[in-house]
Amino acid sequence: MLEDWLAPKAAALEARGLTRRLVARAADGGLIDLAGNDYLGLARDPRVVTAAADAVRTWGTGATASRLVTGTTELHEELESALAAYAGQESALVFSSGYLANLGVVTALGGPGTLLVSDEHVHASLVDAGRLARSRVEIVPHNDVDAVEKVLAERNEPHAVVMTESVFSVLSDEAPLLELAAVARAHNAVLLVDEAHGLGVSGNGHGSVHAAGLAGLEHVVVTMTLSKSLASQGGVVLGPSVLREHLVNRARPFIYDTGLNPAACAAALAALEVLQVEPDRPAAIHAAAARLAAACEVPPSRGAVVSVPMPGPRETVRAAELCLRNGVRVGSFRPPSVPDGISRLRLTAHAGLSAADLDRACAVVVDAIGAVS
Amino acid sequence: MLEDWLAPKAAALEARGLTRRLVARAADGGLIDLAGNDYLGLARDPRVVTAAADAVRTWGTGATASRLVTGTTELHEELESALAAYAGQESALVFSSGYLANLGVVTALGGPGTLLVSDEHVHASLVDAGRLARSRVEIVPHNDVDAVEKVLAERNEPHAVVMTESVFSVLSDEAPLLELAAVARAHNAVLLVDEAHGLGVSGNGHGSVHAAGLAGLEHVVVTMTLSKSLASQGGVVLGPSVLREHLVNRARPFIYDTGLNPAACAAALAALEVLQVEPDRPAAIHAAAARLAAACEVPPSRGAVVSVPMPGPRETVRAAELCLRNGVRVGSFRPPSVPDGISRLRLTAHAGLSAADLDRACAVVVDAIGAVS
Ligand SMILES: Cc1ncc(COP(=O)(O)O)c(C=O)c1O
Ligand SMILES: Cc1ncc(COP(=O)(O)O)c(C=O)c1O
Repeated sequence: MLEDWLAPKAAALEARGLTRRLVARAADGGLIDLAGNDYLGLARDPRVVTAAADAVRTWGTGATASRLVTGTTELHEELESALAAYAGQESALVFSSGYLANLGVVTALGGPGTLLVSDEHVHASLVDAGRLARSRVEIVPHNDVDAVEKVLAERNEPHAVVMTESVFSVLSDEAPLLELAAVARAHNAVLLVDEAHGLGVSGNGHGSVHAAGLAGLEHVVVTMTLSKSLASQGGVVLGPSVLREHLVNRARPFIYDTGLNPAACAAALAALEVLQVEPDRPAAIHAAAARLAAACEVPPSRGAVVSVPMPGPRETVRAAELCLRNGVRVGSFRPPSVPDGISRLRLTAHAGLSAADLDRACAVVVDAIGAVS
Repeated sequence: MLEDWLAPKAAALEARGLTRRLVARAADGGLIDLAGNDYLGLARDPRVVTAAADAVRTWGTGATASRLVTGTTELHEELESALAAYAGQESALVFSSGYLANLGVVTALGGPGTLLVSDEHVHASLVDAGRLARSRVEIVPHNDVDAVEKVLAERNEPHAVVMTESVFSVLSDEAPLLELAAVARAHNAVLLVDEAHGLGVSGNGHGSVHAAGLAGLEHVVVTMTLSKSLASQGGVVLGPSVLREHLVNRARPFIYDTGLNPAACAAALAALEVLQVEPDRPAAIHAAAARLAAACEVPPSRGAVVSVPMPGPRETVRAAELCLRNGVRVGSFRPPSVPDGISRLRLTAHAGLSAADLDRACAVVVDAIGAVS
């Protein structure tokens, strides 16, 4: 039954070199990591680790219910206040993942009376959110402000939400936030910015929306994940209090989902504190990214991710395997995970990389690319 | 902008007595809890707490990336093996929430060639999954096997998935699994059973699918959450290996989501171990549920949840407030969180309740219901 249905699909993927397989890592692989999104290098920071372990003792191992029943602890509220303050927003609402935060805010603002305008490169969670929202969705070319303005101006829906990312997750380029915010305001629309890859990285860590002076504006809404720079798990929607109240009452992926576990809340909160007492960490990410980009002869990146186009999916996988054999873990992204269909190595710069590790990483990656190209 | 858009909606909810507000709890409220879904009473069990705290030290505070990049640790695989073995299934794939597990499996099996047949009472995550799947969705009356058979027989789609829960989350009644499985098999369809409230509770803990002898059948797929009986966070899809491979390659909420954090993996794994060395815990849930049901003069429950219908939403909230004032936390469920539109108190029985606490809880709840009715 399932065998007859699914096995031919698996064979078709295999034939195209696109099969994905899970490879488990050991606790200490002794590898240099250029694959994970722990941009600030905090997932093993003793302060963050201790905060998480303490929270498990104080609060237990799970939230035990929906945030609306008994799944909201004082720890959740403390985290929400800290995130709102850091991002310069009036309020914050924490979800159990960044994926669900995007689904939650878009579906709660969506519906037949709302047009959704989506940049063609937005993350899968925003694409799914658009599909789920029962709204008309207009997909516009990447970073094309004129196209956004055109569909906003021509719409019949009373409401509209423009969806983009501040720093895009695969290509690591930036959205024209100021222009998008101006166009949104002129057409009575909300600008929704996913700062999954901006938090901790751009705007000295506070994110691109903050850096652009857009934080706290009534028509700008931000989502972030706690799973990258904050070395934890979870997601958050930031914006005016009236939005937070609306989400509490209308966002199904918030209402009908168990609250984020206490260990994850505490880890994110502690990571945010480290970022505030060590405000130079974002600069270290950019320095490492510049080194990696120069070594691989690709243009410098605006975010933590350095994207290296490869000839095809098989070469990408082989180069990643070569790197791993030489002690460096890199990401290999192939269709459908790449917005432009081009397979690539995805190297993430971390604040925690030593100069020696960075030297070694550059040498290994450059060798691997040469070997397969 | 957002104020003009959302404030009138908030006022309309308020006028109907349906506004939801978050109330944060303290670490030790000294309350008797009948609201959370920690059915086995394990969220503060020292073995579970220690396992989670140790995992944070060993593995760090986050998975740091998608399961496909570097977010799969050996801990994830160990948890998946343990869950598959306990549920009697060939394989398991862990997601960062039960919500995303449901979205993932349904969208990966869905599409234009697949009919989705959904019981009218299924959880919001399965409803959303149906909306997201780009499939035709037929909603059938609650537990109506004939209706399921009719739509399966009349379909044009080559594939079909029948979606139900083993123990329903609000009414705590059970699905006719044997009949549904037989009908599904006869019509070349998959039966998808959400055991969120079955795991740890029914079938001596192994769940209703296991108890019915359906575990491991090629056309039966199970989802579970790790956030209720296992006192953690996360979700899992269980079934044949060919399904697991398919999900790794096709389930967007798996591929594009950060892996479950190590603390949550370890907590769920430890909770599962406790359940195996203390196999009497599920029976303690049923004994407590029977006591609560008898005290509230409602029919005995098949699961851990005792559902007490109330005159209306305001009475429900007032009764819950009275209980809280007297040291007992209960759930108050109002539209749209109730499948039949009837507001109710939702009391969850826990294996950990002492006889004295149960006596006190019964007295307090009965008084509160009397006071508002
Ligand atoms: C841009 C973007 N948004 C949202 C998400 C989802 O966040 P999470 O993994 O925390 O669910 C991710 C990555 O996973 C992302 O890259
Ligand atoms: C039946 C059912 N399925 C799925 C879920 C979602 O699970 P989670 O809260 O772990 O995301 C829940 C409850 O939250 C549920 O009751």
